[in-house]
Amino acid sequence: MKAMVEEVPDVVVARLPLYLRALNFLTEEGISVISSGELADRLGLSAAQIRKDLSHFGDFGKQGSGYAVGYLRQQLREILNLQDAWDVALVGAGDLGHALVHYGGFIGHGFRIRLVFDNNPQKIGRELGGLTILSPALMKEEIRRLQMRLAIIAVPAAAAQRVTDELIEAGVEAILSYAPITLQVPPNIHMQYIDPVVYLQHMTFYLK
Amino acid sequence: MKAMVEEVPDVVVARLPLYLRALNFLTEEGISVISSGELADRLGLSAAQIRKDLSHFGDFGKQGSGYAVGYLRQQLREILNLQDAWDVALVGAGDLGHALVHYGGFIGHGFRIRLVFDNNPQKIGRELGGLTILSPALMKEEIRRLQMRLAIIAVPAAAAQRVTDELIEAGVEAILSYAPITLQVPPNIHMQYIDPVVYLQHMTFYLK
Repeated sequence: MKAMVEEVPDVVVARLPLYLRALNFLTEEGISVISSGELADRLGLSAAQIRKDLSHFGDFGKQGSGYAVGYLRQQLREILNLQDAWDVALVGAGDLGHALVHYGGFIGHGFRIRLVFDNNPQKIGRELGGLTILSPALMKEEIRRLQMRLAIIAVPAAAAQRVTDELIEAGVEAILSYAPITLQVPPNIHMQYIDPVVYLQHMTFYLK
Repeated sequence: MKAMVEEVPDVVVARLPLYLRALNFLTEEGISVISSGELADRLGLSAAQIRKDLSHFGDFGKQGSGYAVGYLRQQLREILNLQDAWDVALVGAGDLGHALVHYGGFIGHGFRIRLVFDNNPQKIGRELGGLTILSPALMKEEIRRLQMRLAIIAVPAAAAQRVTDELIEAGVEAILSYAPITLQVPPNIHMQYIDPVVYLQHMTFYLK
């Protein structure tokens, strides 16, 4: 049974996709039952952590018999609202945008890039991964028409806030931004950021 | 004065690059002094959080007069060991590898991609962003020769563990992996992961 969203700490939610990813690999490997200890080893976490995290959502493992991989995987997909694939709008068709459109990891894991926008007149109208690159002038209209709630931003930092504001105005509720800047958004909008420099600097702290 | 590394919680370390990034923008904007409250607004954090995080490393702000942007920026660069640019080895010259090599955000923020490897015979020997794509057979030798300690992995999940093992054998101590899999590494190796699916799924949890 799914707990109330309010009750689950965000750090726990952040780990659920990692559990699901590991269960996907186990399925590919033909493993149907796994102990919390084995799952913990694969994830570099403790078994106690995994049991505690999952206990927010129900009782998924019998003491001593481990987790049923298929069942837990199915439950996690439901908890993460992945029953149907989400349409995603991508803003920015530069090098990174190209890599994202061609990335094979979205399909099958709940996501499908459905719209691509770029403000470069030389790119507008061209095809990218089976999609036609659209002008940002069409962004609000198209996103509203398709009732899309998810977007990925792959534009330079200087353009990111304006794009964010327009996406939110169009109805987008969750944004993954690759722009290296913290964006200002209303409290009801979900944001995640990917900036390789931030991750590299996090590690150089530890390198004397 | 820099505190002992052991004393600083990793969650605090993770925020330092965000502070530095904000200070870089402030410098570009010509702002030389900022209050913890204004900095907090830009970062979506609380002023108390920022003061507490920075207090691990010294006393950077006078009560009521705010932080000196240039000084704090310089101190954070030293704390994160960014005085000199770090050479980075990139493994994987696919779409993502291309985007990383062409990304302008590394230079000036402490990093320079110096070696690129790919196991595709059609790519080996070709130029990418001023570098020659090398065979993975040369990985250990080249990384050792240049005494490189940082690497980025942009290969498929199936190849990522093997590449990781080889990088560590070559002397790499910190790895940023874009492969969608949790990698097994010794405790002295620093790992960070970037998987857009994980970040998107984190957000769909909250979308009913």
